Amino acid sequence: MELPDIHDIEQAHERIRKVIHRTPVMTCRGIDSICGVSIFFKCENFQKVGAFKFRGASNAVLSMKNEEIAGGVATHSSGNHAAALALAASQRGVPSYIVMPRTAPAIKKAAVEAYGGIITFCEPTLEARESTLNQVVEQTGAAFIHPYNNPLVIAGQGTASLELLQDVPGLDAVIAPVGGGGLLSGTTICAKSLKPDIHVIGAEPAMADDAMRSLREGRIIPSLNPSTIADGLLTSLGSITFAILSSHNTTILTASEENIVRAMRLIWERMKIIAEPSSAVALAIILEHSRYFRENFSRVGIIISGGNVDLQNLPFPLVK
Amino acid sequence: MELPDIHDIEQAHERIRKVIHRTPVMTCRGIDSICGVSIFFKCENFQKVGAFKFRGASNAVLSMKNEEIAGGVATHSSGNHAAALALAASQRGVPSYIVMPRTAPAIKKAAVEAYGGIITFCEPTLEARESTLNQVVEQTGAAFIHPYNNPLVIAGQGTASLELLQDVPGLDAVIAPVGGGGLLSGTTICAKSLKPDIHVIGAEPAMADDAMRSLREGRIIPSLNPSTIADGLLTSLGSITFAILSSHNTTILTASEENIVRAMRLIWERMKIIAEPSSAVALAIILEHSRYFRENFSRVGIIISGGNVDLQNLPFPLVK
Repeated sequence: MELPDIHDIEQAHERIRKVIHRTPVMTCRGIDSICGVSIFFKCENFQKVGAFKFRGASNAVLSMKNEEIAGGVATHSSGNHAAALALAASQRGVPSYIVMPRTAPAIKKAAVEAYGGIITFCEPTLEARESTLNQVVEQTGAAFIHPYNNPLVIAGQGTASLELLQDVPGLDAVIAPVGGGGLLSGTTICAKSLKPDIHVIGAEPAMADDAMRSLREGRIIPSLNPSTIADGLLTSLGSITFAILSSHNTTILTASEENIVRAMRLIWERMKIIAEPSSAVALAIILEHSRYFRENFSRVGIIISGGNVDLQNLPFPLVK
Repeated sequence: MELPDIHDIEQAHERIRKVIHRTPVMTCRGIDSICGVSIFFKCENFQKVGAFKFRGASNAVLSMKNEEIAGGVATHSSGNHAAALALAASQRGVPSYIVMPRTAPAIKKAAVEAYGGIITFCEPTLEARESTLNQVVEQTGAAFIHPYNNPLVIAGQGTASLELLQDVPGLDAVIAPVGGGGLLSGTTICAKSLKPDIHVIGAEPAMADDAMRSLREGRIIPSLNPSTIADGLLTSLGSITFAILSSHNTTILTASEENIVRAMRLIWERMKIIAEPSSAVALAIILEHSRYFRENFSRVGIIISGGNVDLQNLPFPLVK
């Protein structure tokens, strides 16, 4: 298996530079003082489609030859990758076929449609997604772009930390949320290549801790009935992301649902930006493991992975 | 009556430059395409204390001589000016006494306390505020810093558009929300001095349209029982803000509650930033008077005045 490396990430950045936003890095004294470390938030909630996923999708779509992409692209996704692929495909002028669980947030369905994606709904199980996707690919001849288990997608996601490390010198740790592991894999390759002594930490909901258990046990453990507000982190690692994270021995830390909502509230109230629950998990692990962070790190980068939230259905009344 | 002019605003900027954030100007293609004009959002929700009010409060506090400010400062405010004055006072090392209606949002009370302000609660009427404030001033010897009817405060608020006009060339209109008129007065003086052909427009909730009626009738009409989600815009014009807005013949346009919530939702969903309802009124008037804007303007500046929202009590379930 050919794993992506830092050159793939640099090439990806060159390729997608003109179609993505170079998102800002924000800081917040109030949150720093609560956490006891200086935090640099790479704001991918301001990325096109509202999430880092546009980096990977664009890199995949722009890397393909005309004959490879003639039938369009297809994927299954709980939301952000779907919108990202739909926009990337529409910018390249090819159709996109999106298999999406019926339970996906309304805002994510609407986004996919707005970007011209053709949705096929399925039951919210991995099996249903895959069988529905196979049918769609068979019928359309579209190229399947996996949401994370794809070297080009991983390389694209790595460009977020490439920019973060260019913009913020002296980081001693970088945190990215982990669902399927595309962002965390790209972050790991990028950060460890450019700054070998940096700590890369995956942030996972305790209620969906399959990545932590997979890396601990040395095999992919599927995410069974995960129950977390972080709806972007329900998926399990893939063969490629598992190989990358295993070979780098990437640390995973988990956070409780309560700390995820607390972190989300802190970001909303103190920074005045909208981060989705999956993004808040990265700050939540600092709240949950505060002593570890205070004692070991002084400058921590966090990738705010997205800002797509269903405003009809917010968690704040639940946790003060 | 000595009204502030552009030199006062430039001096204010020089004075407060080092203590305020130079807030970013953001754009959003999605909102531009809905509105049919290019909008440049001056993001004072990212200002210290989460609102432009820190500009005026800082300018007032930093302008005073030691003997004038020895007893501290005092004010009445529904929220943002209170937090702003508390922080400005604490940075100068003097106490601040804040008279606040019992009904102010929890987040605003907490902010004032966090900045060291000493709160005295009163009934939510102008009369109660003023009589309580008089008692506080009598007891403490504090200097009263009016939330808007104060030339130094108005000059400070004007620095937001000073930065906006420096950063964005070729604006043909600037919109600021109007409650007591401090921001709109500062915006009017600044914008009309630097760019005499620019249109300055005040944005007011239709359910609290006292500023529009006051300017139309040529006298201050108090805001009686205003009923709007835009809780920062409940106050009436003061003698100074009325004089400034009258002399410039500043236009006021109003928006319905439904368009205010629609605008707030657009800003949250599309821009991924948190704007309070009072700020959303500025975008809401473009939604409400869309043809007027499309036909008359191409580049419009909007001051997003603040981002302090009570997350326990959001309007989104009310309006789709």
